[in-house]
Parts: sequence; C-alpha cells; structure tokens
Amino acid sequence: MDFPARTPEPPYYAVVFTSRRTPADAEGYAVTAERMLELATLQPGFLGVESVHAADGQGITVSYWDSLESVRRWGRDAEHRIAQAGGRSKWYAAYRLRVCRVERDDQFHPSANT
Amino acid sequence: MDFPARTPEPPYYAVVFTSRRTPADAEGYAVTAERMLELATLQPGFLGVESVHAADGQGITVSYWDSLESVRRWGRDAEHRIAQAGGRSKWYAAYRLRVCRVERDDQFHPSANT
Repeated sequence: MDFPARTPEPPYYAVVFTSRRTPADAEGYAVTAERMLELATLQPGFLGVESVHAADGQGITVSYWDSLESVRRWGRDAEHRIAQAGGRSKWYAAYRLRVCRVERDDQFHPSANT
Repeated sequence: MDFPARTPEPPYYAVVFTSRRTPADAEGYAVTAERMLELATLQPGFLGVESVHAADGQGITVSYWDSLESVRRWGRDAEHRIAQAGGRSKWYAAYRLRVCRVERDDQFHPSANT
C-alpha cells in the first residue's frame, strides 16, 4: 500500500478516523482491523487509505473515496457494521469520525518525479 | 492536548498531512515539529490537532481550522515557511497535504457523555 496514498485530483472525499484503543482484546482487534482494511480496498469508489498507530494506542486512519455515496455504502456494509459494534463495545476508549471533501492536494515525492 | 480533538459542529476545515520521514537529523526534526505544533495552536482560527507517528517513520497530522483563510494564513506564516523548507530539504522522503472541508462528524466518547 502506498504511503502517502496515490489519490487522484480533487475533489474527492476523505474519512478521518481518529481513535484511542482500550487495552482489551489486542488480537481480536488486530484481526478485525486488518480485515476491514482489506475489505475497504474492495469497495466501489475506494481510492486509497493511510493508517498510522502509535504504541500508546492512538491511531489515525484516513480512507479516500470518490463520492459521498461510496462513503455511505461502506459505512453501511454488513461486515463493517459488526466491526463497528466491536469497536464501541470493547476496542475503543474514544473515537471520532469526520467525513470531509478534499478540495486541494499538494505533494512532495522527489523519487516519484523521475 | 485532547485526542481525538474536540472540534465544534461542522462545517470546518481539516488539513491532513501524511508524511514519511528520512532518517536524517532526528533531533532537528523533533525540535521543529514540536515548535510548529505549539505555533499552530496560537494561530487565529485554530480548532485542534491530532498527530500520530509510528516507529517506521510514517506519520499523519490532522489540524483543524475555522476557515480556508485561517488555513492559508498558517501556510504562509514566516516561521512555518522555514520549517516547510527544512521538511523538503532533509526531513521528509515524501509527504502529501490535503485541505478538506469537514462536512460530518460522529463521535464515540463514553466517559465524556456524563
């Protein structure tokens, strides 16, 4: 997976998911998080994803989508819904999910310019 | 600093800065990164910031702003400009900066509901 993600020209959509983990069920969380990343990449309208987690349990995952309809469809996906419930019941102490319209995009990637 | 950041009701703006560090000048980078975070919080229109870095050098910093004008003003800040040049010349192997309009915001924060 490219990091930063290679997204197209704006406009497109970004879902910024900021979370703090509980210490609970590290293995179940890891399996589900990996599955959700994999499943997201298969959705219609998926453009890319960037995910960074620190040792203290703080994480930011930004996924990119072609339209609000694609964002909503992924939010309602049945397997994703089950994972969301797991997030609220055990894995996350807190999270915030922001749906955004990307309006401008600058990049610096010297090795990709050639 | 709250994590996730306590931002107001949308709409507002998010700047998603996704980066991969070089191994160069770890100390200079750390001092400058901390100074930029501190300086950002003092800017007009600043609403909050979330920043996560992993041991492999990948990082995501999302800063939140009340308007595009506040985003632009911070981008043009003189001390920030000097830091940006340091980023391109030595600290970052690649980065991407996306300016976004936050349209929807969901949160889960059980301990804050009381």
